[in-house]
Amino acid sequence: MLRQVLHELTIPTRGRGLHEFTREVAAWIAKCGFKEGLLTLHLRHTSASLLIQENADPDVRADLERFFARLAPDGDPMFAHTVEGADDMSAHVRTALTTVNLSIPVRDGRLALGTWQGIHLWEHRRQPHTRRVALHFIGE
Amino acid sequence: MLRQVLHELTIPTRGRGLHEFTREVAAWIAKCGFKEGLLTLHLRHTSASLLIQENADPDVRADLERFFARLAPDGDPMFAHTVEGADDMSAHVRTALTTVNLSIPVRDGRLALGTWQGIHLWEHRRQPHTRRVALHFIGE
Amino acid sequence: MLRQVLHELTIPTRGRGLHEFTREVAAWIAKCGFKEGLLTLHLRHTSASLLIQENADPDVRADLERFFARLAPDGDPMFAHTVEGADDMSAHVRTALTTVNLSIPVRDGRLALGTWQGIHLWEHRRQPHTRRVALHFIGE
Repeated sequence: MLRQVLHELTIPTRGRGLHEFTREVAAWIAKCGFKEGLLTLHLRHTSASLLIQENADPDVRADLERFFARLAPDGDPMFAHTVEGADDMSAHVRTALTTVNLSIPVRDGRLALGTWQGIHLWEHRRQPHTRRVALHFIGE
Repeated sequence: MLRQVLHELTIPTRGRGLHEFTREVAAWIAKCGFKEGLLTLHLRHTSASLLIQENADPDVRADLERFFARLAPDGDPMFAHTVEGADDMSAHVRTALTTVNLSIPVRDGRLALGTWQGIHLWEHRRQPHTRRVALHFIGE
Repeated sequence: MLRQVLHELTIPTRGRGLHEFTREVAAWIAKCGFKEGLLTLHLRHTSASLLIQENADPDVRADLERFFARLAPDGDPMFAHTVEGADDMSAHVRTALTTVNLSIPVRDGRLALGTWQGIHLWEHRRQPHTRRVALHFIGE
């Protein structure tokens, strides 16, 4: 019998960087007893992203940060939108280059992630923020 | 009782730039009386994108445009695919760097978007086009 | 009567490049007799992407490859994560710049893709790999 459940996770960040929250998502799936279905995550912000990436070697996260800092540098003189500081428009650009939606199948009560995949909230602002992720599950 | 509905929106663009159509999507949800569920949008083109981004300050949209014009410039001598003009291959690159799919939960009859999030069709070609977005809703 | 089905495709790659597998996905939809619904694909890897892009002119694929090779070059001295070779961290960056999830409506028994859209697995590593894509369908 198919059913759907909505939920919202609140993720506090400590400023710019990748914050893994696979465990929080898996805990919600376990608590609700979902066996098979589709999980969708939607981040309700325009200056942070959702990213599925390697969660083993912390160098990967540091390299991703360095790469995006070079690609979309804070305080780029090209930007007109500067009212909220030098990291504001670069954060919007980083968000546009990545994504705010993820859709992941669930089977046997677990996310169908690969061995090295973790779900991350990528905070693009330098200051800590409280971020909200809307969750939707449909299945059994 | 779960149900699903398919629909298609036609979005005329005036050439390159971000065109917000959150209102058209919300109107369809209201008209169908959806309360809770999952909305998926799929853009049926390879030289335009779907983007959730800030819809308040127009400078954000202008800065995104400038950033992507510098990152993937029209007429880049690197490109071999030039038959449709200098903005053709750069449009494909911009599409690959962003996305053509969005999945957004619906609750209390409304999209679970954040305060500053708007749904945009990002036209990457310089000429106006008529773009088609396939919509799918499942829920109640 | 709504139903859901889970599946997994195994896609062998011949090293870096775009590998179209629209046909394999369409064959699964036909075999299962799906008429209307939502198809989700999730690639279970961190150094390859899913990409919907033009499948007509092979120059588009070659140009995308060239663009990303310039944007995120192998062996960039900026990278600390080098244990698996010069193409390892650049592969993670390319994956972050694109996506590993796709959601596509199905109607009249067919994917709601545009005329020029094909579903590709983008292998970012130089060596051949065996890649797994989790599929989820919900609908009728």
